[in-house]
Amino acid sequence: GYAQVDTERGVRTGVSEVIYGAGKSAAQIAGIVDAMRRAGQERILITRMDERKAAELAEMGCSFAYHAEAHAGVVGELPEPDGNGEILVLTAGTSDIAVAEEAVLTARFLGNSVTCVNDAGVAGIHRLLRHGEEIARAQVIIAIAGMEGALPSVVGGLAACPVIAVPTSVGYGANLGGLTALLAMVNSCASGVSVVNIDNGFGAAYQASLINHLSGKR
Amino acid sequence: GYAQVDTERGVRTGVSEVIYGAGKSAAQIAGIVDAMRRAGQERILITRMDERKAAELAEMGCSFAYHAEAHAGVVGELPEPDGNGEILVLTAGTSDIAVAEEAVLTARFLGNSVTCVNDAGVAGIHRLLRHGEEIARAQVIIAIAGMEGALPSVVGGLAACPVIAVPTSVGYGANLGGLTALLAMVNSCASGVSVVNIDNGFGAAYQASLINHLSGKR
Amino acid sequence: GYAQVDTERGVRTGVSEVIYGAGKSAAQIAGIVDAMRRAGQERILITRMDERKAAELAEMGCSFAYHAEAHAGVVGELPEPDGNGEILVLTAGTSDIAVAEEAVLTARFLGNSVTCVNDAGVAGIHRLLRHGEEIARAQVIIAIAGMEGALPSVVGGLAACPVIAVPTSVGYGANLGGLTALLAMVNSCASGVSVVNIDNGFGAAYQASLINHLSGKR
Amino acid sequence: GYAQVDTERGVRTGVSEVIYGAGKSAAQIAGIVDAMRRAGQERILITRMDERKAAELAEMGCSFAYHAEAHAGVVGELPEPDGNGEILVLTAGTSDIAVAEEAVLTARFLGNSVTCVNDAGVAGIHRLLRHGEEIARAQVIIAIAGMEGALPSVVGGLAACPVIAVPTSVGYGANLGGLTALLAMVNSCASGVSVVNIDNGFGAAYQASLINHLSGKR
Amino acid sequence: GYAQVDTERGVRTGVSEVIYGAGKSAAQIAGIVDAMRRAGQERILITRMDERKAAELAEMGCSFAYHAEAHAGVVGELPEPDGNGEILVLTAGTSDIAVAEEAVLTARFLGNSVTCVNDAGVAGIHRLLRHGEEIARAQVIIAIAGMEGALPSVVGGLAACPVIAVPTSVGYGANLGGLTALLAMVNSCASGVSVVNIDNGFGAAYQASLINHLSGKR
Amino acid sequence: GYAQVDTERGVRTGVSEVIYGAGKSAAQIAGIVDAMRRAGQERILITRMDERKAAELAEMGCSFAYHAEAHAGVVGELPEPDGNGEILVLTAGTSDIAVAEEAVLTARFLGNSVTCVNDAGVAGIHRLLRHGEEIARAQVIIAIAGMEGALPSVVGGLAACPVIAVPTSVGYGANLGGLTALLAMVNSCASGVSVVNIDNGFGAAYQASLINHLSGKR
Amino acid sequence: GYAQVDTERGVRTGVSEVIYGAGKSAAQIAGIVDAMRRAGQERILITRMDERKAAELAEMGCSFAYHAEAHAGVVGELPEPDGNGEILVLTAGTSDIAVAEEAVLTARFLGNSVTCVNDAGVAGIHRLLRHGEEIARAQVIIAIAGMEGALPSVVGGLAACPVIAVPTSVGYGANLGGLTALLAMVNSCASGVSVVNIDNGFGAAYQASLINHLSGKR
Amino acid sequence: GYAQVDTERGVRTGVSEVIYGAGKSAAQIAGIVDAMRRAGQERILITRMDERKAAELAEMGCSFAYHAEAHAGVVGELPEPDGNGEILVLTAGTSDIAVAEEAVLTARFLGNSVTCVNDAGVAGIHRLLRHGEEIARAQVIIAIAGMEGALPSVVGGLAACPVIAVPTSVGYGANLGGLTALLAMVNSCASGVSVVNIDNGFGAAYQASLINHLSGKR
Ligand SMILES: Nc1ncnc2c1ncn2[C@@H]1O[C@H](COP(=O)(O)O)[C@@H](O)[C@H]1O
Ligand SMILES: Nc1ncnc2c1ncn2[C@@H]1O[C@H](COP(=O)(O)O)[C@@H](O)[C@H]1O
Ligand SMILES: Nc1ncnc2c1ncn2[C@@H]1O[C@H](COP(=O)(O)O)[C@@H](O)[C@H]1O
Ligand SMILES: Nc1ncnc2c1ncn2[C@@H]1O[C@H](COP(=O)(O)O)[C@@H](O)[C@H]1O
Ligand SMILES: [Mg+2]
Ligand SMILES: [Mg+2]
Ligand SMILES: [Mg+2]
Ligand SMILES: [Mg+2]
Ligand SMILES: [Mg+2]
Ligand SMILES: [Mg+2]
Ligand SMILES: [Mg+2]
Ligand SMILES: [Mg+2]
Repeated sequence: GYAQVDTERGVRTGVSEVIYGAGKSAAQIAGIVDAMRRAGQERILITRMDERKAAELAEMGCSFAYHAEAHAGVVGELPEPDGNGEILVLTAGTSDIAVAEEAVLTARFLGNSVTCVNDAGVAGIHRLLRHGEEIARAQVIIAIAGMEGALPSVVGGLAACPVIAVPTSVGYGANLGGLTALLAMVNSCASGVSVVNIDNGFGAAYQASLINHLSGKR
Repeated sequence: GYAQVDTERGVRTGVSEVIYGAGKSAAQIAGIVDAMRRAGQERILITRMDERKAAELAEMGCSFAYHAEAHAGVVGELPEPDGNGEILVLTAGTSDIAVAEEAVLTARFLGNSVTCVNDAGVAGIHRLLRHGEEIARAQVIIAIAGMEGALPSVVGGLAACPVIAVPTSVGYGANLGGLTALLAMVNSCASGVSVVNIDNGFGAAYQASLINHLSGKR
Repeated sequence: GYAQVDTERGVRTGVSEVIYGAGKSAAQIAGIVDAMRRAGQERILITRMDERKAAELAEMGCSFAYHAEAHAGVVGELPEPDGNGEILVLTAGTSDIAVAEEAVLTARFLGNSVTCVNDAGVAGIHRLLRHGEEIARAQVIIAIAGMEGALPSVVGGLAACPVIAVPTSVGYGANLGGLTALLAMVNSCASGVSVVNIDNGFGAAYQASLINHLSGKR
Repeated sequence: GYAQVDTERGVRTGVSEVIYGAGKSAAQIAGIVDAMRRAGQERILITRMDERKAAELAEMGCSFAYHAEAHAGVVGELPEPDGNGEILVLTAGTSDIAVAEEAVLTARFLGNSVTCVNDAGVAGIHRLLRHGEEIARAQVIIAIAGMEGALPSVVGGLAACPVIAVPTSVGYGANLGGLTALLAMVNSCASGVSVVNIDNGFGAAYQASLINHLSGKR
Repeated sequence: GYAQVDTERGVRTGVSEVIYGAGKSAAQIAGIVDAMRRAGQERILITRMDERKAAELAEMGCSFAYHAEAHAGVVGELPEPDGNGEILVLTAGTSDIAVAEEAVLTARFLGNSVTCVNDAGVAGIHRLLRHGEEIARAQVIIAIAGMEGALPSVVGGLAACPVIAVPTSVGYGANLGGLTALLAMVNSCASGVSVVNIDNGFGAAYQASLINHLSGKR
Repeated sequence: GYAQVDTERGVRTGVSEVIYGAGKSAAQIAGIVDAMRRAGQERILITRMDERKAAELAEMGCSFAYHAEAHAGVVGELPEPDGNGEILVLTAGTSDIAVAEEAVLTARFLGNSVTCVNDAGVAGIHRLLRHGEEIARAQVIIAIAGMEGALPSVVGGLAACPVIAVPTSVGYGANLGGLTALLAMVNSCASGVSVVNIDNGFGAAYQASLINHLSGKR
Repeated sequence: GYAQVDTERGVRTGVSEVIYGAGKSAAQIAGIVDAMRRAGQERILITRMDERKAAELAEMGCSFAYHAEAHAGVVGELPEPDGNGEILVLTAGTSDIAVAEEAVLTARFLGNSVTCVNDAGVAGIHRLLRHGEEIARAQVIIAIAGMEGALPSVVGGLAACPVIAVPTSVGYGANLGGLTALLAMVNSCASGVSVVNIDNGFGAAYQASLINHLSGKR
Repeated sequence: GYAQVDTERGVRTGVSEVIYGAGKSAAQIAGIVDAMRRAGQERILITRMDERKAAELAEMGCSFAYHAEAHAGVVGELPEPDGNGEILVLTAGTSDIAVAEEAVLTARFLGNSVTCVNDAGVAGIHRLLRHGEEIARAQVIIAIAGMEGALPSVVGGLAACPVIAVPTSVGYGANLGGLTALLAMVNSCASGVSVVNIDNGFGAAYQASLINHLSGKR
């Protein structure tokens, strides 16, 4: 078999498995969706699936909603928010929005309430500073930036909550496909910031959701 | 002046500022400690201060406890734990312990209860698996590894709480001074893992403490 | 001439030469196949040949079986297994299967018995641990992973036989086209693991086959 | 001869040559100082000269003032400011001050009026914002940062004058000896920012001085 | 909203905002142009917009002139030069001209008088030396090169004014997509040279224009 | 505790654990040796232990033989060879011998018969070709090279047995601390070659020993 | 103008200028050819020109012979060999031949007698050794390899004449687009070898031709 | 034995072997010198030997002249020049002279007549241009530079003979230990330039000598 579906994952980690669509054929995805549904999972997120593959999947009789901006599909209904607080998604520039959409959809899929502020790059710092209230209200912040790797650093200094930074591959030349932003974010001396992979809106939202659902085990 | 002490940081982010000792002279550190104390801060952490600099600082009349294994000094008493739960610090190998000590001290300084499991590298996976209970109990996990960048990946799959990964510079050759572990951790497809700088035990503990103190703002 | 066919290679190293199809035209491949057959080689493997080139080659009258998933062609029949034991091919994720197919076909072409376990990535470690029996039975293991460079490390700790690790270019961002997985595998402190080039399923299988055919020269 | 002293440089570019002390012996430096003085240059800057080499040079009878914090020596008197305006030197952290000292001394040596603001890193953005007046007044700004490559980006958005960014090697791990800060600064989308070599306080001040002395050729 | 248009930027920095067209849809660009015009901005530069996107934008009723060689559009009229002097744009080779066109258009858009000298690479140094007069006359020089990272270094030694270096991605192999030229330019020991991102003709012209418009604040 | 001694490893993988001495204090090593001996292990290898640490360890009453050239200590007697055949250790240059010594000692510690041929670099290929007999006789070959990454490639073409390549950090400049040799070896198209970490003589010998002890499980 | 044709180059360096076709339009090439011809140059080489651009150029009325395998055009006749001796072009694998064709055509264009030996990679060293005579006869050798960076190293040890090494971008994974071969060739300790850019068959042949035409100036 | 002395090398390549002293003990060097002398070699060059090792070697009774600036020893007399022409050694800066000294000594050891021009960096291009006569006279040029990787590029355009470029590790920051200069030199579009390893004055001189001794085999 091409996959070992991890149906106990929900039990083990409290969150059901998600399908990473990038390296898989529509047929493989359909097979995994089937296996998951048979194992009792009603809500399934399929990330990194382009429009063409989504169409193929639909033709195979798989029923799901396609979110074009997030390059993702959702089988079943999105849930009502059940986290402890709000996740704030910040982007530095308009071109980083594609990654933000993946983060927003994932966070909502996992039961979080999400706010979004775009184009808040630090090269015009007042555009960020005017959102002090959203920053103060957030339980977790996801800061997304390609050319302005500086964003999470500044946000980390303003916020009292954890910041998950997402470098993006947006830019050219010295951006090195996102590696420069990644290293700059990791290197930053702002406390309270940790980093996920380049363009990994999904991973940031997953981590933010885990944090937002911590119930306090003391 | 050589420093602008950020005395409002406690107000703004809920945590008092910490002194990064690495690039500063003993005299500079003494000056910053004085300014902070005058501004009312009673408990101060000084990270990345070697034994020699600590001795110089003591000779200047600064009163603090030196934690040699963590390469850090603490002005004032360490507080009682007041977080919501426990932070678990895991290391892959004995040589990663130095970084873990910085994380443990920082976490305790910030009011957290900490458990430590060393030498749990994945090349002998049963050494990790036998600690399932500590993993299940933790509110946040800090996973520290140099040669076995794999550790956070495996832990991320076992745990239901957020994992902060710390790559270390331990190793040789293809470890590239910790860059290999950093990239491997970021690249890993385990959900619920985010990463801080190489050897940055402080930063991992700081974010873990933020997470552990989230009170739920809903 | 564009090639010096190494017809004595079989005599010298015990294995006949293989054609690396990537940089060659169908015509060049046809020419080399002819030369090899004239030199008495009946079974020929052509790797890294895409569907279009395979079709061209067939049109030129060259008779061979095309294995689409492995991107390879085989002139003549695949042999019966004649190695000492079994080669186990493990993949971390479904997207690594393309590389595994090259490894499996090569290993079978070289006379080995092969078992395959897919999607055994360490982010859900129980999916690997449930295959303890296959691991114990193997004479050599080929561990293939892109995003979870950790796999060979964990396998190396579980197995009593040599492990050949194959990094893949599967992934994005910090995967650096497979370089991150390559360095992580080389850096790993699990003993008994050695590494071949990114996506080089062929090379791993070749090495595994050499090991599996060692007759003991003492 | 070990050097071809460029005595016409003053004529050609309007600024006299400076001695880069790093790779030269005290004897070589003494020889070059002599040649320059014989050619009529009265004021000479010797950069990157450590205390020990400075002492040797003094013992050889060379007369100059040593500026320990800037690791530089000055033969002759520092001039009165004769530029068009003020150069503002900003550092992100206390540990970046060493590089700033080289910039400040060089700028003063070249006839500029200089203001200095330290520890204005963006992780506590109010420490930068409170210096709005100095930023508005400056003719050129030199922004120096190692761990917070973000600084020039933010400053570039606040200032109406050119910003010269200097990455420093301060930091650890993902700082890659300053390369991360360098790439982040170059990658930044703030307009009006250009970059010099890592730790190159001299080069930044040199260009800032050129800008500050432009008389308007229209 | 997908963008926070920075309409106060003109007030704050003396230059109106520019639209970076690369990551934006024609519809997004149209929306931003509208918002800017409503805020009173009459002249707008849209960079990195290819012919196809420009056509779409025109079809949406947006009125602008398209400059194909510069891959840029201009809403409104280009202004008369109002800077203090002339900006000289130098390219090393014919293939670097595309980047030069972006620089020239940006500089003119920002009110500068511009001269252009192409194919002045240092491998035939007399082709550069014969332009001594243009070099002497310039208020700022923009030196653009991909394969001959040496150009700004040589120009920096010849000129009495600031030089802004632009590495280009022109070349192959060891050019590393422009990174080699970038590092070589930063590494160069010519004083008076600073560097912007690979292929960033816009950024160089912006910085050059700031310098050219400095009125002397003493 | 600072270590979890893996006493079942012998049972699990057929080889007892080895102590990596590099990041450990003499006291920690002594503690691990004690725990291992109490668990019944009589023969222990301690790698990467310099002369000074070895002396400290001896002073603590730990009894072992120190092998200075291999930077390693052996508790207990070296065993008689019990593998199936001979391991051939080849070095390219005299300076690579230090790594070879680690490989030779490890291989002997693990019960193998070892032959050594030094200074067989390919820049004088006859020095390699004259050792055809040793190459033909070997069951496994370890090829060690820093400046001449080519060695394993050539050996792989000559030998009928598996070749384990060890890149070394010997060299300067473009050797990039061994990374160049590592990548060159991985990149080589010689079949039957796999690679371990830079300077990892131990790891190469460990895998070679696994191969040499394969009993044939068919 | 887009180009400054270096018509004195022939006088200055003894070789006429060549047109690098890669970044230029057919119209630009036609213009440069015209200028050169008017300046009296009768034989012109145009490198890195693909079939489509060659066709466009021909349609513009430019008369030249197109060499498809070398991706180059020649205006005028190829000359009779007038060098001192023979240039030997060696390739490691069939896929490196494209680069070799550029080298061969360039060398012939510059008046050299050329011999070619393909597929002489060191993984089957006898295929190289059987060409001892050609190696002994050569005045200069050009050694071209992508996956087997080892080739020039071995050749350098066999030959008594200078060897120019050309790394190629042939390969995958750890070949890093030719960078691995480049670094390996530079790192090699074989004396008498120097290196040109990745895939730069032209540059190697140019250098080889200069060497082959040295008349002895003593 | 730790070395296989290549005594036939003189016969094979026309030049006797040289000892690379860096990774060898004084005792090993002494042993190799003895073996060479017994094999009839009277003149031996020992490169990369620091003062301390030279002293040890002398104490062992080995008789040789030590050249401190070149970090090299010479057994026997330096020969009279017997090449066809002159080798010109050019350095960009005073700090590059150490590498030049190795090149000069090696070239003289191999029987060449050598001229040296120092501090001819392109940032003051007239310092290079004033040496047109030496450039025109040379049979081969060795161009050595660290911070000004541009030098060989400019020289390549001025000279009619082959240029061997030597990048040096001189510099800081973006020089990347010499890698930047290496890549810039390789990337340069000046024809007639080839490159050796960072700091490899020996290798450059060796190839220059081969070129200078070519007798013309036509
Ligand atoms: N060990 C450490 N690693 C990284 N960042 C640190 C460390 N210790 C302190 N910091 C950060 O450095 C800031 C203080 O820097 P400084 O102003 O240079 O003392 C603190 O607020 C922390 O955010
Ligand atoms: N997919 C592959 N990846 C790496 N090496 C290969 C592959 N297929 C064949 N080879 C090697 O390439 C050699 C043949 O190369 P060539 O002479 O270019 O056809 C074979 O002997 C193998 O060593
Ligand atoms: N070609 C370009 N390269 C780099 N930065 C640019 C370019 N064009 C515009 N920009 C910058 O991008 C900003 C606008 O970005 P955005 O908000 O994404 O449209 C402008 O203010 C400029 O600072
Ligand atoms: N300074 C040097 N840099 C690079 N290669 C060298 C140097 N000195 C000697 N060699 C080479 O090293 C070979 C001898 O190496 P070895 O056998 O290790 O002494 C000589 O034949 C030269 O090819
Ligand atoms: Mg924007
Ligand atoms: Mg351990
Ligand atoms: Mg999976
Ligand atoms: Mg600070
Ligand atoms: Mg040109
Ligand atoms: Mg040797
Ligand atoms: Mg071949
Ligand atoms: Mg100089």
